[in-house]
Amino acid sequence: MPSDDSDILFPFAPDSDDAQFAGEDDGELKPLLGDDYYMRAALRCAQQAADAGEVPVGAVAVKDGLIIARSWNQVELLKDATAHAELMLIASLPQVIGDWRLDGIDIYVTKEPCAMCAGAMVNSRIRRVVFGMRDPRCGAAGTALNVTGFPGMLHNVEVTAGLMEEECKEMFQAFFRTVRANARKKKS
Amino acid sequence: MPSDDSDILFPFAPDSDDAQFAGEDDGELKPLLGDDYYMRAALRCAQQAADAGEVPVGAVAVKDGLIIARSWNQVELLKDATAHAELMLIASLPQVIGDWRLDGIDIYVTKEPCAMCAGAMVNSRIRRVVFGMRDPRCGAAGTALNVTGFPGMLHNVEVTAGLMEEECKEMFQAFFRTVRANARKKKS
Repeated sequence: MPSDDSDILFPFAPDSDDAQFAGEDDGELKPLLGDDYYMRAALRCAQQAADAGEVPVGAVAVKDGLIIARSWNQVELLKDATAHAELMLIASLPQVIGDWRLDGIDIYVTKEPCAMCAGAMVNSRIRRVVFGMRDPRCGAAGTALNVTGFPGMLHNVEVTAGLMEEECKEMFQAFFRTVRANARKKKS
Repeated sequence: MPSDDSDILFPFAPDSDDAQFAGEDDGELKPLLGDDYYMRAALRCAQQAADAGEVPVGAVAVKDGLIIARSWNQVELLKDATAHAELMLIASLPQVIGDWRLDGIDIYVTKEPCAMCAGAMVNSRIRRVVFGMRDPRCGAAGTALNVTGFPGMLHNVEVTAGLMEEECKEMFQAFFRTVRANARKKKS
């Protein structure tokens, strides 16, 4: 993972090692990037959250191979228990794409969405969610609950679970190690 | 249901027939209102949605017997598929009460919350949700899915289902009758 956050400033620049672009017959420059690339971008967003003292969850939205929006958990900053990375990402998308029909958009997020965020993906007709760390207690994309694929819902979201799970989990655990260490320091 | 919307302008005024206030020993005027009173307030919010051409769902938040916030579905207005009455209500509460710990708050809503809104209630530790119309397809407060009472979640929301269900359903059905009639007019 690159240590700089250059792709947060220049979202479409192929700045990372695995960025591969290829000219297509129609003359357009199209990205040929794998899921790992987008998850690494989501991890950088999670790092932004961690740096701000937030539980480190980051998410990016991808359409036609391009990252069109980024977000991270801002519960503490906004003092709003609904300010999860995914929900804020989804709420930003209509403005980003100039349309509130979010067809063909995929979300990459470092942690399995909760029921609220999974429900927001269903309501917004997100095509696919790729997540890192599974959440056995509250994960609502198949691990604890199945909101994304619940039969009879108006829309189902395709799910890829556990991508780069170790990296995502490590960032989570490192954050809570720091929180606990700081709490111990305060006490002593 | 009163036809005016006076309690939207003056939320704490006992303007409706069933408002009963009684002096308490401590000299404070405390409301002694039943669930029906708050659901009627939610229905008036739903009517605001209907008047604006939105699917008529309305919600109010109640703390210590007082209505502290109101909201209604604004998906069309905001062009945002997440702008459901309950989610917007919850997002507004920290500012209303000056605290983001939403202890002891109940929500009255005319339709059973979807997974997104039920998840937001869990995340925000809403004490109780009272809803009108059940949603057999997507209702996530016990009818299709049980997000509000899912075992192992960090918080469970108490649920009262089907309060004034007929009135809530009738408003819903009336709205869609009008939508269909208008569509037919346009065609002919």
